[in-house]
Amino acid sequence: MSRTLWTDEQGVVRTIDQTVLPFERREIALRSPDDCDRAIREMQVRGAPLIGAVGAYGLALALRADPSDASLEHACERLAAARPTAVNLRWALGRVRRRVAAAPSARRAALAWDEAGRICDEDVACNERIGTHGARLLRDLAARRSGRAGALQLLTHCNAGRIATVDYGTALAPIYRLHAEGFPVHVWVDETRPRNQGAALTAWELAERGVAHTVIADNAGGLLMMQGRVDAVIVGCDRVAANGDVANKVGTYLKALAARDNGVPFYVACPVSTIDPDTPDGASIPIEERAAREVTHLSGILDDGSRATVRVVPAGSAVANPAFDITPARLVTALVTERGVCDASAGGLRAVLEADAR
Amino acid sequence: MSRTLWTDEQGVVRTIDQTVLPFERREIALRSPDDCDRAIREMQVRGAPLIGAVGAYGLALALRADPSDASLEHACERLAAARPTAVNLRWALGRVRRRVAAAPSARRAALAWDEAGRICDEDVACNERIGTHGARLLRDLAARRSGRAGALQLLTHCNAGRIATVDYGTALAPIYRLHAEGFPVHVWVDETRPRNQGAALTAWELAERGVAHTVIADNAGGLLMMQGRVDAVIVGCDRVAANGDVANKVGTYLKALAARDNGVPFYVACPVSTIDPDTPDGASIPIEERAAREVTHLSGILDDGSRATVRVVPAGSAVANPAFDITPARLVTALVTERGVCDASAGGLRAVLEADAR
Repeated sequence: MSRTLWTDEQGVVRTIDQTVLPFERREIALRSPDDCDRAIREMQVRGAPLIGAVGAYGLALALRADPSDASLEHACERLAAARPTAVNLRWALGRVRRRVAAAPSARRAALAWDEAGRICDEDVACNERIGTHGARLLRDLAARRSGRAGALQLLTHCNAGRIATVDYGTALAPIYRLHAEGFPVHVWVDETRPRNQGAALTAWELAERGVAHTVIADNAGGLLMMQGRVDAVIVGCDRVAANGDVANKVGTYLKALAARDNGVPFYVACPVSTIDPDTPDGASIPIEERAAREVTHLSGILDDGSRATVRVVPAGSAVANPAFDITPARLVTALVTERGVCDASAGGLRAVLEADAR
Repeated sequence: MSRTLWTDEQGVVRTIDQTVLPFERREIALRSPDDCDRAIREMQVRGAPLIGAVGAYGLALALRADPSDASLEHACERLAAARPTAVNLRWALGRVRRRVAAAPSARRAALAWDEAGRICDEDVACNERIGTHGARLLRDLAARRSGRAGALQLLTHCNAGRIATVDYGTALAPIYRLHAEGFPVHVWVDETRPRNQGAALTAWELAERGVAHTVIADNAGGLLMMQGRVDAVIVGCDRVAANGDVANKVGTYLKALAARDNGVPFYVACPVSTIDPDTPDGASIPIEERAAREVTHLSGILDDGSRATVRVVPAGSAVANPAFDITPARLVTALVTERGVCDASAGGLRAVLEADAR
């Protein structure tokens, strides 16, 4: 089973605890809406598409315990609040709710369970298509590089890979596709402080699939672009506003600025469900402020392989920890969706939203 | 004794081991050029002005052991290679060498020792003047803020403070000056991966002096500027090229881009000795590549207060670790030197280089 999220015969949802990667691969079982809520809040699962899927199963598990309207509303509200920035979570919850709203109580849990499964299957198919469209874009880019030999040099921030989704990933889907086709590609992986999703998750899954990559401090990307060592930046995202502004992991905006300053294309890969026509622009997107401990403490392994957490910021210092930032549409070269590549503009987004899904 | 570097009656150079800050204040003794060389290479001392001073004392200690020309040349070459990017080190070594070149062997060590002491005294006086000029600039900026109450909000990267110099600091000198005058100021401190000089050193010394500050991941600065929560960025630097391009700790360039994108002034504070007329532009500045272990491992303290080092990047991943980047002159609002404020341009630099030091 290569999926990040799967279910077993007993109706238990299973996934990988991402807080102990890359040094341990530990499976966890989600048996209740509480389990799903906690897994999302504690970031045992993360990545906009994956938390959408976990949220959907959380609703199904809530309805299995209590199929009433009150239970449905309570579970929706609670799960939606688990992570406020990603739109996929609210989208997946809304989709399950609509599916069961008119159904009799006795059928609600089964309908919700099936709908959650469909959300997962669609995510996999969607990401495969993002991979196809993105790989074509990157092949074209590689063909236009004048006088540059060697692998296509891509830079990514955070983790928008296989384990941010049910499978394939969004930003990494085109990379996996190119790699599968034997096209030489090398990925600069931002470590992505404070939670180190790049160093811990992107590096881990690229290594698992044999994709060449190099981990760098988040600070290094600007220099690499200035030195001509990056052909394109490709990232995932948590929400696209109606005007094309993009919310993604904090630090994305800085890479987009460096890309623009050095003539490097900056691509955002995301399913159409990430586009939120109800959010007019980036300034309207709530930015989640997370615990100071994510900045003050860091987990890893000691020389003997055991896990340990060290404090790196003195106890007397205040800490701020915004989890996302906004990349203005003007800095985004293109969005890569399952329906094709489009401009990060109101017109471009309307076109993909109105296009038939195929 | 508040200085970062001092000497005792026995002719021993003493300083603070910056690799164990902020959790331990450990003094170390430098008794030989080897000790000085190692302290610079292992970054027990760091910060362009401070390593210049340590290099000068290293030369004096080499001449105490062997005052020959061969000893002088050997020590100069070796110490200059300890950190290739900072120009102050080569500047300080050249100054001591010129001082002793024509002197008889018997007097060389004493002359070099005195010259190193003068370099330290001048650094302190120089930084005080940077503090005066910078504080005036920041007061003027605060006066122009329309409708913004509360403390002046500054952001800094890395550590260009008291412990990067013999005293006062460069980028932090104006902040200490404002704070001493009772002017309300708050500092956003980039943690500054991979070595965490912001979290470990800047936060520590600001806390020690009671200056309000908040530690953030390097990724967060762009969002804070976009949200209007930063009035100015002020950083130190390791070398200013003749055209005004600035080499500073990796990640500085990304903050300069964000400052420009949001209309936030970006100031670089440095002694005139940091300006290198022999380096035409930023592309000519060698960028030091440091050990992968700085990225893969992190040191801090465990809950029981003991020190520990954890690995945070999987062993199978390659790592790159450039220590500096280049901020193009066009992104620098002004340089703050001991001779006043100037443009980051060939003309601006010539003017301060030719001005009388006063």
